[in-house]
Amino acid sequence: MRNLQGRLDLCSINTATLGHREPLNQTIDRIARAGFGGIAPWRREVEAGDLAQLARQIKSLDLTVTGYCRSTYLPAATTTEFNANIEANRAAIRDAAVLGAQCFVMVVGGLVPGSRDVQDARSQVIDGIEILLDTAREYGVPLALEPLHPMYAANRAVVNTIAQAVQICEAVDPARTGVIGVAVDVYHCWWDPELTASIAAVGQAGRILAYHVCDWMYETGDMLLDRGMMGDGVIDLPSVRSCVEHAGYNGLVETEIFFAQNWWQRDPDKVLAICAERLQTVC
Amino acid sequence: MRNLQGRLDLCSINTATLGHREPLNQTIDRIARAGFGGIAPWRREVEAGDLAQLARQIKSLDLTVTGYCRSTYLPAATTTEFNANIEANRAAIRDAAVLGAQCFVMVVGGLVPGSRDVQDARSQVIDGIEILLDTAREYGVPLALEPLHPMYAANRAVVNTIAQAVQICEAVDPARTGVIGVAVDVYHCWWDPELTASIAAVGQAGRILAYHVCDWMYETGDMLLDRGMMGDGVIDLPSVRSCVEHAGYNGLVETEIFFAQNWWQRDPDKVLAICAERLQTVC
Repeated sequence: MRNLQGRLDLCSINTATLGHREPLNQTIDRIARAGFGGIAPWRREVEAGDLAQLARQIKSLDLTVTGYCRSTYLPAATTTEFNANIEANRAAIRDAAVLGAQCFVMVVGGLVPGSRDVQDARSQVIDGIEILLDTAREYGVPLALEPLHPMYAANRAVVNTIAQAVQICEAVDPARTGVIGVAVDVYHCWWDPELTASIAAVGQAGRILAYHVCDWMYETGDMLLDRGMMGDGVIDLPSVRSCVEHAGYNGLVETEIFFAQNWWQRDPDKVLAICAERLQTVC
Repeated sequence: MRNLQGRLDLCSINTATLGHREPLNQTIDRIARAGFGGIAPWRREVEAGDLAQLARQIKSLDLTVTGYCRSTYLPAATTTEFNANIEANRAAIRDAAVLGAQCFVMVVGGLVPGSRDVQDARSQVIDGIEILLDTAREYGVPLALEPLHPMYAANRAVVNTIAQAVQICEAVDPARTGVIGVAVDVYHCWWDPELTASIAAVGQAGRILAYHVCDWMYETGDMLLDRGMMGDGVIDLPSVRSCVEHAGYNGLVETEIFFAQNWWQRDPDKVLAICAERLQTVC
């Protein structure tokens, strides 16, 4: 396993970690100034700014874009809505290409509101992904399916385990062309009894496109905004990273924390300093 | 699939559904009066009353005890604590026998507080179960492993999928003697991409010992106390029951709801009436 000590160039910051409190150009500068090698911006920030200019800024600072967050949810109640979701994702993939993103992060969406048909939602997800593969190929931006924690199955993502994500990848891209893979996020998968085997399988398929860290707090109060700083929770981070790297991943380690009552209240530079320290010592 | 219309004799009430607001003897009477065929009481209620008398009351009302809730968590920081957990469970299994319970519900416990070693916690769980099998055999009360939703992996149970539970059962009781099986609760497993296959596997092993229903609210606010009434959420209840019965389960359907801000505030008889109506119409 790589030693991250003194290697912030191997570390990336997902801008959600700072709570989306300022324009992206300022965030980009902060992240570069703190010495990180990468950034993962969100669409809301990019779309609120000047795409080409942001792309130039990121490039000039030599930051790797470890992912572009994130897809419009796919499942829809009508064909019109479904098609609109596809178009929104196509536009985002084009933007991801301009940013030079290593992948487009796919949080696939949950049940169609009002529906109890998880199979239908999962079918729609596969249909949508198949359609988007062409755009991903055309623009050279791989789709990174991110399995979300099962507690988000209803309202955020019906892809909930790494094994399930790999299965989808293999079904839609059996030739393993590199156009689709998986984003492994410790928050979503740390509990999985099949974690080691699943990571090995996704690695063997050459499909680990991103690796996200944060922590799971022993007593988690809020289901969305209570993700901990690495080291503050219960996840055995070195063990998971060891699996991921053993499975062939050699990309950046991205920090992605949603914690409204803590990290989103603090001075962004101080948050980045703590991320840097934790990435080098406990991840 | 069985038709539950007019068949409350096939339905059971877990007393947690009523919020543990009154002595168990009153709850027993209410549940019998409402026409249910079964009850699943909690230790705190039984231990606060007179075990033999409660057992006689339940028997005289011809209620099936669909489960006795629940085990003391197994993983511990020291051998002394671990052994104390085993003894507490042994005592509870003896009480379960007096109550005539069809199974002793095992919520196995999470990580040892302060530890990040989920493998160790899972090993301790298996060790503990192996020790308790003797007691379960001696008193004729099968252990029902209940996989809890992955969001409880840290602090409540490191057994999180039906597949994992079956694997443990097969490891500790390869001869399938009937001493250990699985409690399937829709709340914990509805999201599982492998749900159909897992239920088929646990059924094929003859190990479905209990079936619990409630619902998952589309927007779940509280991780513990926000379980919905059947029909109010997103779970396709007839589809899951169909799988379970197709897999050979012919026991009672038990309602277990934890919903502090709603059902635990309402008149118990009215809650039971709504459970009865929902069990017959949407489950």
